[in-house]
Amino acid sequence: MNEYITVRYLTEGKDLSKKAEGIAVGMTVGSWTELPAARKEMLAPYLGRVEGVTVQEECSGIQRGIISIQYPVGNITPDIPALLTTVFGKLSMDGKIKLMDIDFPPSLLSQFPGPKFGIEGVRSLLGVTERPLLMSIFKSCLGLPLHELEEQFAAQLEGGVDLVKDDEIFFVDDKAPLEKRLQSYNRIRENAGRPVLYAANLTGPVHQLIDRAKYAIENGANCLLLNILPYGFDILHRLAADPDITVPLMAHPALAGAFSSAAEYGIASPLLLGKLMRIAGADLVLFPSPYGSVALERNEALAIADNVRAENGVHRPSFPVPSAGIHPALVPQLYEDFGTDAIINAGGGVHGHPGGAADGARAFRAAIDAVTSGRTLADAANESQPLAAALKKWGGA
Amino acid sequence: MNEYITVRYLTEGKDLSKKAEGIAVGMTVGSWTELPAARKEMLAPYLGRVEGVTVQEECSGIQRGIISIQYPVGNITPDIPALLTTVFGKLSMDGKIKLMDIDFPPSLLSQFPGPKFGIEGVRSLLGVTERPLLMSIFKSCLGLPLHELEEQFAAQLEGGVDLVKDDEIFFVDDKAPLEKRLQSYNRIRENAGRPVLYAANLTGPVHQLIDRAKYAIENGANCLLLNILPYGFDILHRLAADPDITVPLMAHPALAGAFSSAAEYGIASPLLLGKLMRIAGADLVLFPSPYGSVALERNEALAIADNVRAENGVHRPSFPVPSAGIHPALVPQLYEDFGTDAIINAGGGVHGHPGGAADGARAFRAAIDAVTSGRTLADAANESQPLAAALKKWGGA
Repeated sequence: MNEYITVRYLTEGKDLSKKAEGIAVGMTVGSWTELPAARKEMLAPYLGRVEGVTVQEECSGIQRGIISIQYPVGNITPDIPALLTTVFGKLSMDGKIKLMDIDFPPSLLSQFPGPKFGIEGVRSLLGVTERPLLMSIFKSCLGLPLHELEEQFAAQLEGGVDLVKDDEIFFVDDKAPLEKRLQSYNRIRENAGRPVLYAANLTGPVHQLIDRAKYAIENGANCLLLNILPYGFDILHRLAADPDITVPLMAHPALAGAFSSAAEYGIASPLLLGKLMRIAGADLVLFPSPYGSVALERNEALAIADNVRAENGVHRPSFPVPSAGIHPALVPQLYEDFGTDAIINAGGGVHGHPGGAADGARAFRAAIDAVTSGRTLADAANESQPLAAALKKWGGA
Repeated sequence: MNEYITVRYLTEGKDLSKKAEGIAVGMTVGSWTELPAARKEMLAPYLGRVEGVTVQEECSGIQRGIISIQYPVGNITPDIPALLTTVFGKLSMDGKIKLMDIDFPPSLLSQFPGPKFGIEGVRSLLGVTERPLLMSIFKSCLGLPLHELEEQFAAQLEGGVDLVKDDEIFFVDDKAPLEKRLQSYNRIRENAGRPVLYAANLTGPVHQLIDRAKYAIENGANCLLLNILPYGFDILHRLAADPDITVPLMAHPALAGAFSSAAEYGIASPLLLGKLMRIAGADLVLFPSPYGSVALERNEALAIADNVRAENGVHRPSFPVPSAGIHPALVPQLYEDFGTDAIINAGGGVHGHPGGAADGARAFRAAIDAVTSGRTLADAANESQPLAAALKKWGGA
């Protein structure tokens, strides 16, 4: 029995059913109806097929809607470059068409590594079970000497964050090289008296990234950040599949807007940042929150979180990390939208606190404690001066 | 003296000048005006600056136009992931914005490998100096046994093509494994009595692609095809920079539409498929021709060709390969648009010839000979039955 990958596209055309047939043949065996019977028999296992066509609107003779095509699993090798080339390579250039979703049969899914740690593994490393985690970002990294970064790092830890990440544009680190940062931050981490994950930006030539990751881990890295889309999905897959990569992998969404922002072209974000990041092995998946200025539509952000966490029969769930525009007054909304198994991630919302980054983190922790115990922020602010100051600055409650 | 990378964006906003300032600061040092003087002095070398703002239209209080930002070269490592993350990572998710162009200072350009062969190198391998080259694509590859592929390959060579490429979706080749194809095609190539390049599809885990390329070359590969965008630009860079990769690299545009088709988002194709492919090291750059159903706008296709060939002070020019929808009757138009230093590339226009693939190639060669000697196709068709048959089928002249 042939197994199929089911791929949904949003597209338009004079006749969507005919277009769907064209895709099913054109993206697989190339031609079909005119082939002799013997050749049809030989190529049948490779032929795509139309699963369904839903015309959503028709205007001036142009149909617009969803085309669902099934591709034989045997047409691809189990990796994302082969997958994307096969289902969207040439097709991406063929007029208005957006790749909306892909459903994988379990046999294919199981050939992708998925997260090595996932939600449970990251929680276990941090020893935190019952609340959303708190992450903060360095205010900036580029050009700063190590001692300033140390101060930023220490202040964030002092206030109670669980994870700290490098700035994703931190490629040139000659003033604070990775080895030195790791030594220094690890000393600060040890003094924190509780586990903290520091996601160091993994950079360099793509064919050396696995070795660089191992080197970082040997030098004390306990989490790694990677700009997945600029480097390509496959290196995430290979990092996650490598037994010597023994730390969680954090996926930054840099460049995602180039793929997913257009309504009629590209790749939908719940697939790009949700399903694909997870199957390729991201333990923590950053994506634009629905609240800030760099924002996703709420339903898209929720769909990403759903895709990284929902049972898929094979992989551990990953932590969704809705990011950008987050301040303490948003915690109730975040908790309502993303629940307990999410990470609250802030940059300006920590560093911009009137009392500094440590108070910024304290305000978030107080807000998180409030929502998980069913209290209002206003109530909790009576016992937390940092939260009170945050609410005064950012409104809310 | 600081050197800068100049980046142009098409975007919109209430106040483009203010937006430009926000990008120049936000994508580099993070904050500026409120910093103390000592810190400004320290961070000044990393600060982006606004080169110019051109408001192209203003409607209902929204300005639309081009913002030009200069990023210090020292902010990035010389690789495309660092470049794209830095100039478009976060920004790509920030509303309507399209990355239109990047100008590199020579000091940065010279740190990218560029094409190892380029136009002159490929011509030299083929021994063809004075005319556009002819390339053809296997009608299909997936699922076909070796002997059928051999027949396709031989027919294409018989008709006079200079280059043949694998289908880009050829990942699963168990019926005709790469080693076997190389052995067999090389035998056929030797019998051709003239040089022919066969671009074998390079596939596999990204961290193994360099080794796989070397293995292919040891087994007789004389050209390699790669789906650059699904794998990521950096692996092309590393292949091109490796002295043991001694064959031309052919860049397929699979997935390009996901980046470049939208007017208001993504990355413009003359940058994506033109400049970036060339600096990363593609000797031959495929892109949608302006003629077929999978088409680019004519000015975009011409701009790609211009970007891969124009003098950039550092790199060899690459061969532009406008593809899709090409048949012999289009050769005069192709020659007018792309000139001598281009590759005429056809799939259906070769295999769909009434006399078969060999006649298809003959028709193209006759058409190329006609245009380079200033004759009309109708005139040349008097001496070439295959060209006459092609013109009858595909119209023209």
